[in-house]
Amino acid sequence: MKVFDRDEYDARVKRVQAQMNANGFDLLLSCDPANMNYLTGYDGWSFYTPQLVAVPANGDEPICIVRGIDQPGGVVTCYLREENILGYPDDYVQSTDKHPMEWMAEVFISRGLDTGTIAVDMDAYYYSARAHAALVAALPNAAFVDSGKLVNWARLIKSDAEIRYMREAAQLIELAMRAGIDAINPGVRQCDAVADIQNAQIRGKSEFGGEYTSLVPMLPTGEGTTTPHLTWNSEPFKEGEPTILELAGCRNRYHCPMSRTVHLGPPPERMTTVAKVAVEAINTTIDMMKPGVTCEEVQAAWTAVVQQHGIEKDSRMGYSIGLNYPPDWGEHTLSIRPGDTTPLQAGMTLHVMPGIWLDNWGVEISEPVLITEKGAEKFCTFPQELVVKT
Amino acid sequence: MKVFDRDEYDARVKRVQAQMNANGFDLLLSCDPANMNYLTGYDGWSFYTPQLVAVPANGDEPICIVRGIDQPGGVVTCYLREENILGYPDDYVQSTDKHPMEWMAEVFISRGLDTGTIAVDMDAYYYSARAHAALVAALPNAAFVDSGKLVNWARLIKSDAEIRYMREAAQLIELAMRAGIDAINPGVRQCDAVADIQNAQIRGKSEFGGEYTSLVPMLPTGEGTTTPHLTWNSEPFKEGEPTILELAGCRNRYHCPMSRTVHLGPPPERMTTVAKVAVEAINTTIDMMKPGVTCEEVQAAWTAVVQQHGIEKDSRMGYSIGLNYPPDWGEHTLSIRPGDTTPLQAGMTLHVMPGIWLDNWGVEISEPVLITEKGAEKFCTFPQELVVKT
Repeated sequence: MKVFDRDEYDARVKRVQAQMNANGFDLLLSCDPANMNYLTGYDGWSFYTPQLVAVPANGDEPICIVRGIDQPGGVVTCYLREENILGYPDDYVQSTDKHPMEWMAEVFISRGLDTGTIAVDMDAYYYSARAHAALVAALPNAAFVDSGKLVNWARLIKSDAEIRYMREAAQLIELAMRAGIDAINPGVRQCDAVADIQNAQIRGKSEFGGEYTSLVPMLPTGEGTTTPHLTWNSEPFKEGEPTILELAGCRNRYHCPMSRTVHLGPPPERMTTVAKVAVEAINTTIDMMKPGVTCEEVQAAWTAVVQQHGIEKDSRMGYSIGLNYPPDWGEHTLSIRPGDTTPLQAGMTLHVMPGIWLDNWGVEISEPVLITEKGAEKFCTFPQELVVKT
Repeated sequence: MKVFDRDEYDARVKRVQAQMNANGFDLLLSCDPANMNYLTGYDGWSFYTPQLVAVPANGDEPICIVRGIDQPGGVVTCYLREENILGYPDDYVQSTDKHPMEWMAEVFISRGLDTGTIAVDMDAYYYSARAHAALVAALPNAAFVDSGKLVNWARLIKSDAEIRYMREAAQLIELAMRAGIDAINPGVRQCDAVADIQNAQIRGKSEFGGEYTSLVPMLPTGEGTTTPHLTWNSEPFKEGEPTILELAGCRNRYHCPMSRTVHLGPPPERMTTVAKVAVEAINTTIDMMKPGVTCEEVQAAWTAVVQQHGIEKDSRMGYSIGLNYPPDWGEHTLSIRPGDTTPLQAGMTLHVMPGIWLDNWGVEISEPVLITEKGAEKFCTFPQELVVKT
């Protein structure tokens, strides 16, 4: 069940520890399941109870702490020595009078890790306000600071092994998107289309199947296309209406997401035009992406194309992707938007996702890409068009 | 897209406001997507960016605040007046220098809701340590307290309309469990069994389909059955090994979960015995559940049966279920375990889930139940047994 060689994990931990030392952090704690997996290999749907990875700056191995019943899952998935895979007793779970962070604090105290500067992922999913308060109260000898998403940023440049999994995820998203486009027809229920999509996503190929994606399939339809995050129901698709598919493939928790738009029957002329602009703009943008170009320059290149056609957009048009868990496949580091001056580098993987949402409908045609020394390489070769089914 | 009558929502809000007044809370804020849905109807996979429901104690309608691009989804799903469905600008999303809670705080200030006692769900998913810090800093005239999961507790007793959806969810879980048991055979890949399970969960019935469940299908297999939260991969099921299925059906976000265990080939004698004990114990337990019996008495009844057979278990054996979102279908209120003196009441819905995990394998046979005036009623009629496939 180990997804990477030991060398890969060691290199990750060393890189994080170097950054910790540069920042003066003695201990780093993260509840982000993707950060936990990245540094320890831990993989399980157990993030609904408090758990974390602790990285000492002194070069020692990380410590993975989960709920007691999940500790055997840690032994199966982590490369760590068993003394560094710990589980807390079950009476701490959802208790009103004690918190798992108190138990974890005792571990740090017993190992002499409770002094100096402790950096925490303050804005991570599953690091609740109460978890933080409990931890701070239980470790009075430490100074707490925000890690500034140190591990998220360490995940930004992918290794060859990671890119291999993302290429496999790209094969899965192409299968899922094809299944979705094929399924959407007048009178077909939304839930039936999702069943077909998930079947393709999960069954995958004979060489490998897929996993749960960090967002479920999104397929807003009709007026719902003006808003991106409504999920499906049991109503049928209707003639004369558009549907946006935003889907991903997932392989060993690495994601490739992609969006396409389908219209049942002849679309309004304006939609055809907007879709053509969307395709032109995304390709112009991808063509100019290469190491050294900043995120805001990428957004500006896209905006220059769409503005010629009277389209305005103020939400971001892309973000870093890779290893992740629900509720998001974005890495929460760089965003393609004004003000983000992060320069692109080889090994970055991004979802270029310029959704255009107008008053009564929206169009999304997006691409996952890999930045190489030469420029941006699309992970997929899926046709870029407004799919019109008549 | 409104799932309940307006009266139902009004009654919920009134009940919460009465509790708020009893506790001296002037404003209640919750980022828990289930609490948001419960009080406003809001439904979307948008909880990966900060969002919340704000309930004033003064009897006014709640306020729903989400990311700007999700505001139209609020208009589609909420019963609220549009002035109470607000979206924050996109440059707040995953920004390093500002936080959506700062924008939300301005809303409360502009509406005169920034003084007195503000109760927050301190341990809710998606209420990060940074979100809390940003909110407290931006509302210096308020005193912050933990709400004590006030809204979660308000969700504990289900209305007839809610129970109707749970009965529909129960039909979906029976379909999904049947599909899973049928799919698990030697040489079949885990991912292919999941594809079959999700197909049944989502496609559902001709009258209604299903939705995404708050946990994905769990099917630990072989030694993995000693740990409950490993998810599937692309490896085949093996002759001579057990697999635990923990699945749910979901209808309008209401869940019915259930677990069963399958063994490929003749099981070890001890496993057959443990499974028989598990069935006897769960039925003895369900038979004694009725209004007035406390959660710890329920656990004691179960323990009395299994201890006769030399089985020990220290993790909780059940919890409240209903409306929910990833990562958990449990309501985080009552737990069936020692020390929980909550008395059962008619209208409660629970997952009685006494997983037995031994050294090399585990067995789960669980039931979702409704507490009525007469006792506990099983939502499902699915056969209770260790399924042996030879």
